[in-house]
Amino acid sequence: MKIGDLGEFALIEKIKAILPSGGPGVLVGIGDDVAVLSMAAPQAAASATPAPAGPAAPVPATANADPAANAVAGAGADETVWLATCDVQVEGSHFLRSAIDPRDLGHKVLAVNLSDVASAGGKPRFALVSLGLPKDLEVAFVEGLYEGLREEAGRFGVEIVGGNISSVRHGLFIDLFLLGEAKKSEVLLRSGARPGDRILVTGSLGDAAAGVALLLDPGLGAATNTGYEDYYLRAARRRDRPEPRVREGLIIGAAKKASAMIDLSDGLSGDLGHIFERSGVSARIVAADLPVARENRALSLAAKGDEWHFALHGGEDYELLFTCPPDSAAMLAASIREATGTLVTDIGAITKAGEPAQLVLPDGRIIGLGGGGWDHFARTTGGEKR
Amino acid sequence: MKIGDLGEFALIEKIKAILPSGGPGVLVGIGDDVAVLSMAAPQAAASATPAPAGPAAPVPATANADPAANAVAGAGADETVWLATCDVQVEGSHFLRSAIDPRDLGHKVLAVNLSDVASAGGKPRFALVSLGLPKDLEVAFVEGLYEGLREEAGRFGVEIVGGNISSVRHGLFIDLFLLGEAKKSEVLLRSGARPGDRILVTGSLGDAAAGVALLLDPGLGAATNTGYEDYYLRAARRRDRPEPRVREGLIIGAAKKASAMIDLSDGLSGDLGHIFERSGVSARIVAADLPVARENRALSLAAKGDEWHFALHGGEDYELLFTCPPDSAAMLAASIREATGTLVTDIGAITKAGEPAQLVLPDGRIIGLGGGGWDHFARTTGGEKR
Repeated sequence: MKIGDLGEFALIEKIKAILPSGGPGVLVGIGDDVAVLSMAAPQAAASATPAPAGPAAPVPATANADPAANAVAGAGADETVWLATCDVQVEGSHFLRSAIDPRDLGHKVLAVNLSDVASAGGKPRFALVSLGLPKDLEVAFVEGLYEGLREEAGRFGVEIVGGNISSVRHGLFIDLFLLGEAKKSEVLLRSGARPGDRILVTGSLGDAAAGVALLLDPGLGAATNTGYEDYYLRAARRRDRPEPRVREGLIIGAAKKASAMIDLSDGLSGDLGHIFERSGVSARIVAADLPVARENRALSLAAKGDEWHFALHGGEDYELLFTCPPDSAAMLAASIREATGTLVTDIGAITKAGEPAQLVLPDGRIIGLGGGGWDHFARTTGGEKR
Repeated sequence: MKIGDLGEFALIEKIKAILPSGGPGVLVGIGDDVAVLSMAAPQAAASATPAPAGPAAPVPATANADPAANAVAGAGADETVWLATCDVQVEGSHFLRSAIDPRDLGHKVLAVNLSDVASAGGKPRFALVSLGLPKDLEVAFVEGLYEGLREEAGRFGVEIVGGNISSVRHGLFIDLFLLGEAKKSEVLLRSGARPGDRILVTGSLGDAAAGVALLLDPGLGAATNTGYEDYYLRAARRRDRPEPRVREGLIIGAAKKASAMIDLSDGLSGDLGHIFERSGVSARIVAADLPVARENRALSLAAKGDEWHFALHGGEDYELLFTCPPDSAAMLAASIREATGTLVTDIGAITKAGEPAQLVLPDGRIIGLGGGGWDHFARTTGGEKR
């Protein structure tokens, strides 16, 4: 069987089945936005025959939501843990060399990784960059790429500490590995959401998907209202220079009120699906509460026949979605807005596993949330097609 | 200008010029086998506006050689630091999909990274795997790859904690990020070698290059003596399943006698050049003392017209090369051999910068060491051509 027929998520399940789970120092392994790693597990760093240490206590599903019930609070909750993630930009899959500014590419490959560390409530620290470059690439392209990387790294206090360069015959790639840190008691995962929790998102939804749609079909702009030019520029900017919500993630982690968090890279419906899977819950989303520009709804309607499509199923928003008990929602939203200026919107509630994931339309009708998220190998997906 | 015309090393210099050097927590950045990272630099992990910490003290060039003169010994020498590295295997550049066993590929992509952590005297801990896969790849290939990864990780106590999968149009790649740990006072770098130090290597040299030559030119075996069949198998094994010297590296680090260390991935002459550059030294190597099989010398003579070519310029040996004061050489070699069974050979001496790098031939003639190492973008290199 070919992997294109199996699909990305089934392939990941096969890989997880091959690899042992857990192990010394692994607080969270495969399956979340970041791996959570501890140095506290005793390891004979300089011994030739290290004795295996016992497995470290995993971060419980409710690690952050309720300090009183937090099993790790009494033992090492103040321990600093490492967060590790990697994400790549591949020519032909993620970008076209002829159409991209290498500075934007440098910004973006770091930003998508910063967003993963942000989604765990962590502070990004160190990056390694692995390049696969064709021999005929212009030196100026690599220089532009690193200027973008330097600028984005500087904004968030990240140090680029190493990497690797290899030649490729076809298909430039930039793979980035990011290490962050967090206090153990402030780490947020995809697990931990509970029925009754509110669902909040930062910023606005669907803009990057609109930007992609306008790039692929320039006639789309003409099909919508005039006076949208400012929005077109904003959508293109969101597509080319995603803004990782690092400061917002740190505030959410430090407040110790949220129960789960994820960054929106695959689209709201798909990423909410990851929360469902890891937390064992479902959700009801209120369409009228979604932070979506009216221009975005018009473009989505013109392109997809559904004004909510970009907001629900468009990828690469890189906003944070988090859940928290109802009595903390307004406080959290206000404190983020005050410290960062970023809008935070309550878009619905977590419901019990087994309940259908629902979307409440403005006219009161309730429909299925749909979705499915982005499958790198799927020929068709339930969500955004790129 | 194209990067193929500029060359890999000049490109790295351009990148280094763009990026700021150092920074909080960066003990060693770009330019060594691994980055050396500290968590000790005060960082407000959960603050939205972290104050920049002062730069951490860099590991001095002589960190390991002489504890009495070690500037970090008094302050945090027992601190555990992280070692971070990445290396990739790219189809068409590093392997041919039709010719490789995916299990070997899994072993190898981890082994080449383990070798980098070993060269710093560190203990490997956590790996992330970033895959670029074409849709038409067989699922069984990915399963084989992960079985090889699992096996190699299990041998060295490494946990595979995450990764990423992307689709590529052409050219499968497997990029691996490895985190290791070490006591700060036991970390070995490319810097630190001093005139008069002895130069030692583990294992044997040139076997992987012979294995590559036999693969590319099957007639080569017929050109050499009969009775070499066992060696051909050994050379193929060294090519397909490089053996990272993790235990040996830990012993060398813990002994605190070595002054510098590197792993031999680009060929002895090229990697020794990295020691020259970072330590500000030169060397004299004694050909008759090189640990090279007689079959290897015969194959090297037949393939390259020089019996020492594979040993000096062949890549991918993944042996460790380290330097130490003369009075520690025999003790270090003996303790490694005793604990691991691995042969350690004294192959020459470090000389002053400005002296030519020399090779003393068995007949007493002295010639230039030559070399240059593997340039991923060069059309011709001074070393091994692949």
